[in-house]
Amino acid sequence: MSEKASSLPAVPLTLEGAAVLHQMYRLRWPEWRTRAAIEREYAASEFAQQFAPLEQAGASAMYSLYGHKGDLMFVHFRPDFAALKQAESAMAKLRLNDFLEPTTSYVSVVELGLYESTGKTYHDLAQKNIAPHSEEWDAGIKDLVARQSEAMKPRLWPEVPKVQYACFYPMDRKRGEDKNWYMLPLAERQRQMHEHGLVGRRYAGHVKQIISGSIGFDDWEWGVDLFADDPLVFKKLIYEMRFDRVSAEYALFGSFYFGMRCPAAELLPLLDGEWPK
Amino acid sequence: MSEKASSLPAVPLTLEGAAVLHQMYRLRWPEWRTRAAIEREYAASEFAQQFAPLEQAGASAMYSLYGHKGDLMFVHFRPDFAALKQAESAMAKLRLNDFLEPTTSYVSVVELGLYESTGKTYHDLAQKNIAPHSEEWDAGIKDLVARQSEAMKPRLWPEVPKVQYACFYPMDRKRGEDKNWYMLPLAERQRQMHEHGLVGRRYAGHVKQIISGSIGFDDWEWGVDLFADDPLVFKKLIYEMRFDRVSAEYALFGSFYFGMRCPAAELLPLLDGEWPK
Amino acid sequence: MSEKASSLPAVPLTLEGAAVLHQMYRLRWPEWRTRAAIEREYAASEFAQQFAPLEQAGASAMYSLYGHKGDLMFVHFRPDFAALKQAESAMAKLRLNDFLEPTTSYVSVVELGLYESTGKTYHDLAQKNIAPHSEEWDAGIKDLVARQSEAMKPRLWPEVPKVQYACFYPMDRKRGEDKNWYMLPLAERQRQMHEHGLVGRRYAGHVKQIISGSIGFDDWEWGVDLFADDPLVFKKLIYEMRFDRVSAEYALFGSFYFGMRCPAAELLPLLDGEWPK
Amino acid sequence: MSEKASSLPAVPLTLEGAAVLHQMYRLRWPEWRTRAAIEREYAASEFAQQFAPLEQAGASAMYSLYGHKGDLMFVHFRPDFAALKQAESAMAKLRLNDFLEPTTSYVSVVELGLYESTGKTYHDLAQKNIAPHSEEWDAGIKDLVARQSEAMKPRLWPEVPKVQYACFYPMDRKRGEDKNWYMLPLAERQRQMHEHGLVGRRYAGHVKQIISGSIGFDDWEWGVDLFADDPLVFKKLIYEMRFDRVSAEYALFGSFYFGMRCPAAELLPLLDGEWPK
Amino acid sequence: MSEKASSLPAVPLTLEGAAVLHQMYRLRWPEWRTRAAIEREYAASEFAQQFAPLEQAGASAMYSLYGHKGDLMFVHFRPDFAALKQAESAMAKLRLNDFLEPTTSYVSVVELGLYESTGKTYHDLAQKNIAPHSEEWDAGIKDLVARQSEAMKPRLWPEVPKVQYACFYPMDRKRGEDKNWYMLPLAERQRQMHEHGLVGRRYAGHVKQIISGSIGFDDWEWGVDLFADDPLVFKKLIYEMRFDRVSAEYALFGSFYFGMRCPAAELLPLLDGEWPK
Repeated sequence: MSEKASSLPAVPLTLEGAAVLHQMYRLRWPEWRTRAAIEREYAASEFAQQFAPLEQAGASAMYSLYGHKGDLMFVHFRPDFAALKQAESAMAKLRLNDFLEPTTSYVSVVELGLYESTGKTYHDLAQKNIAPHSEEWDAGIKDLVARQSEAMKPRLWPEVPKVQYACFYPMDRKRGEDKNWYMLPLAERQRQMHEHGLVGRRYAGHVKQIISGSIGFDDWEWGVDLFADDPLVFKKLIYEMRFDRVSAEYALFGSFYFGMRCPAAELLPLLDGEWPK
Repeated sequence: MSEKASSLPAVPLTLEGAAVLHQMYRLRWPEWRTRAAIEREYAASEFAQQFAPLEQAGASAMYSLYGHKGDLMFVHFRPDFAALKQAESAMAKLRLNDFLEPTTSYVSVVELGLYESTGKTYHDLAQKNIAPHSEEWDAGIKDLVARQSEAMKPRLWPEVPKVQYACFYPMDRKRGEDKNWYMLPLAERQRQMHEHGLVGRRYAGHVKQIISGSIGFDDWEWGVDLFADDPLVFKKLIYEMRFDRVSAEYALFGSFYFGMRCPAAELLPLLDGEWPK
Repeated sequence: MSEKASSLPAVPLTLEGAAVLHQMYRLRWPEWRTRAAIEREYAASEFAQQFAPLEQAGASAMYSLYGHKGDLMFVHFRPDFAALKQAESAMAKLRLNDFLEPTTSYVSVVELGLYESTGKTYHDLAQKNIAPHSEEWDAGIKDLVARQSEAMKPRLWPEVPKVQYACFYPMDRKRGEDKNWYMLPLAERQRQMHEHGLVGRRYAGHVKQIISGSIGFDDWEWGVDLFADDPLVFKKLIYEMRFDRVSAEYALFGSFYFGMRCPAAELLPLLDGEWPK
Repeated sequence: MSEKASSLPAVPLTLEGAAVLHQMYRLRWPEWRTRAAIEREYAASEFAQQFAPLEQAGASAMYSLYGHKGDLMFVHFRPDFAALKQAESAMAKLRLNDFLEPTTSYVSVVELGLYESTGKTYHDLAQKNIAPHSEEWDAGIKDLVARQSEAMKPRLWPEVPKVQYACFYPMDRKRGEDKNWYMLPLAERQRQMHEHGLVGRRYAGHVKQIISGSIGFDDWEWGVDLFADDPLVFKKLIYEMRFDRVSAEYALFGSFYFGMRCPAAELLPLLDGEWPK
Repeated sequence: MSEKASSLPAVPLTLEGAAVLHQMYRLRWPEWRTRAAIEREYAASEFAQQFAPLEQAGASAMYSLYGHKGDLMFVHFRPDFAALKQAESAMAKLRLNDFLEPTTSYVSVVELGLYESTGKTYHDLAQKNIAPHSEEWDAGIKDLVARQSEAMKPRLWPEVPKVQYACFYPMDRKRGEDKNWYMLPLAERQRQMHEHGLVGRRYAGHVKQIISGSIGFDDWEWGVDLFADDPLVFKKLIYEMRFDRVSAEYALFGSFYFGMRCPAAELLPLLDGEWPK
């Protein structure tokens, strides 16, 4: 590596979009069951009235989780963190909230990694003898980010895909004593991410993936949302990717949350054990 | 390794069958005890009425777990994840559910690994100069998978074996800094899995093993169910396997759940502390 | 190593005896305190009536644990797992159970490792050109196990020693990336286990040790029970053993449970805070 | 390294300032909801009356946390640990406390690391042939610390910055088998900390960082508080720093707590789900 | 190393003294608040009456913990484990116990490590051609231990120091795959412990340290209690020690519990949020 290259920044550029909140809840079943039908109906219809338009707009979605990790998962995409806090408050205010026990949650922001253009941009700026972190350098970066953000708007502020199944999990890049993602040269990380992306592309049309960054917001570095009509695709995709070097050597995974989409209007039958039919 | 071989996919082919849910519950003993006999009887008989036919059909089974990890474990095998969600809802709807506290659960899908045929198939396709992931390649793979799925139907959609004891545990393949299963060549993984299978075969007739995959569905990569009339066989089998290279070096195990099969009709005596006799 | 030796099984032979359950409970103190004296007395005397004969027979024992991990530990030794399930049910049925909150438990089976005779037997059979896992081989092994089981009956179905203090902990053998017990040759494992046994023998008469295996039954590979009248011996013995290679390099330990034996008849004063005197 | 240098102390000098407490709480929502409006108003106004002046003085601040880790985070800076205990008691005494369930907390003391001057000072003293830990040496160190403490007073006893968002996380320096921060020479640690500081400086004006030490007080070695009006800056800063050698190789991170500042006067609308507007 | 030296025992001699119990509790605040003043006063004065004499004698002490790990920590030093069990029972019997929820605890025995004399003694005995673990050897060791125990009586059965702050944490010596304390030669361990002790000695007069061993009694190998009037000394001491090889490479630390001493007579104001003044 030339001395110049080695002094280039190591951090890849990223674009940030929608603020994201995943909320996992367990229903307080005994509490729910002992309440009068009218109370349960009120709670469900108040929720549906508030949630259905968000659902329609692709801003929020509800899932019936499989297993004991939670009965319900709500996913919220909002323009920014102030709006996300409002979304969280609106959920807390619901009568339904009296019957929900939070089991976990995840806070993040939609992120597009620019590994491809980062290498090129750093190199171009350096070619022009612009020193990293100089005013000119920062302007160059700012310009690139602005242009890309504009171009990628729909991917940065996406709608929750209207398909049957969702899979969410958080992940880290390993910083082991020997295998340390953050000590790899940018070019090698770019190469591995590229290879990784090729696998994902083969699943285009079958699964929709949304990556969000959570450094500074939650306990893992990234959150991954997968959406598909055929849930077996989740397994196929993640298993195939696990053999990529970037996953095999450098990926650490948290818990997996897997659920079936349930429309807001179906909450009552769901909590009455009569959904899906 | 020839350049061709090295560019073949690393992921082994798998077949997927029944969607599987393990539910572990602790009884809320004080709550149960203080209820009127008629309420307890109602809860138990409502459960038995719903569960007995499933039990009979080998679709679901109940176990009395040993130790504090839970009092009851329910195992459900269903044709797909939509049917599995219905099974989960049906359990939630039961009056019995008011007395149950979920301690954990496991979500997976019956999986048959095709390590043997994967190597051969990849090689055959490559011999015919078919490029990986080309349309022709995908068709070849699809064809193999369809033929094998048809042939393996009973193993892909199995019944819960009607024997006395069950042992369930989840597991991963290690991705250590040095010992990394996912970085081994396919042929070496195939060899180790073959060796591993030989041990299992020696226990045929004594223990029935069902492997399910859970990548994308739950926190570990696989779930293992063992069923036997003599529980000591669980220990013998797993201990012997632990010396196989694939287990010794690459297996990571989660918690073990060990239970005695209890017919749905015996739930009331079980919860009254009068079962087994 | 000769080719022959390298193809001998790696798994050491073991003998299995009594099925074992450790139950750790915390008392629901506020619940206990607020009940009428007559109810508390009933719960205690019902327990004593059931438990005292088991205690007398060395089949079960009760300990007052030190610290917050539990107030009571019950240890049960039973002929097999069906009888153990009955023991667990009998505990659940007690009125006392309404005041107990399980904190943890351990399920295992008394195990005697036959490292010494395993090596010799494998070698002898191989000398006679008997192939591993052939019918003749299995018969030879079965014969050895039957003879040893007969000879070791009292150690396989032991009584709970009637001494003042107990210490229980689960353990594993390490399967690290570099230090991996399960990859060591049988002869080396035998050598280290022998060395380890020498330390134990020096404590004969001062401490009684019962090893139980829990592969397939619980989360660790073994459980260790130590019984002694002088609790300092626990520390001395375990500390000295920790410098053995087999412990220093290959032992992983779970939580330690340390308690003082309390006769069933003393439960009421114990829960009234008036025991020991 | 000269023999002299190698015998110099390895510990960097530090300055200590304000005692710090982070308190994370979950609201007992059902409890809160069922209380009469007058009770809720009383609890909120009693809190506001006590908390607003502290808030005004920069001594304490309240945040509405994102996600399930807590609903509220209180940050308290106090002159010393006796005053901090009083702050904790004052919180406990509030009627509001009846509705709060602590989820976690963090105890630390504002710390300024003197890596730069430590190396120089040790060297200067050694040049004068003053032996480490001699009376003269200790006097020299004491003198330096006193002078620096005086100079850094505002940074040692800071106010909680009055900006919109806060991010808190604890961290350790790794003591791995191979990569061990505490075994690096002081000069190398100083070099890495210097490099690390350069990144931080580029974010000056955008984010305010307060480091507190917690060795002896809590489970991690340091706590990091970041304060900013634009929450995306947290992610940018921490991500960029993660590529510094000191972070990439030697940083271990605990949980991240991310919240939006809420004035004491707005507690009632917050808990009524009507904040932020 | 000579063959003789290599066959000497590896375990260092230790002296054992007082049995020790640390109890950490959280107050059930809502429960406490809703009780009549007279009940709270009764609970507090019953406690004070029992605890004050123990406090006076240096046998027990109470601390108000910082943070959420507990509201109260009780430390008990007793002559032996039977007396310690009585102390635990006496605490359980208190009315105050109805308001306390145990969060954690620690069980151990005061330990003085004899690294210095162990090496010398082993060597001397070996010089006289006395074989390790022979009767003569054991007599020699017993003699040494008896003499040292007599000499160290006050340090083996210490009083709880009557100072303002306490810091408690448990620790292990690492048994990593490469860095393994228990595989180091005795002489090297002795050297590192000696170096470690030198740091401690520089803090004499400022901090009082009591080491207790917990192998066989609790989950870590040792417990460390530090007592000081200036809490910053805890941080200074532990941080400086962390650079010693024995800590940097071989120490693993559990949770830290940090509290301010509160006299038994001040319990009521403490729980009323009016202490310290």
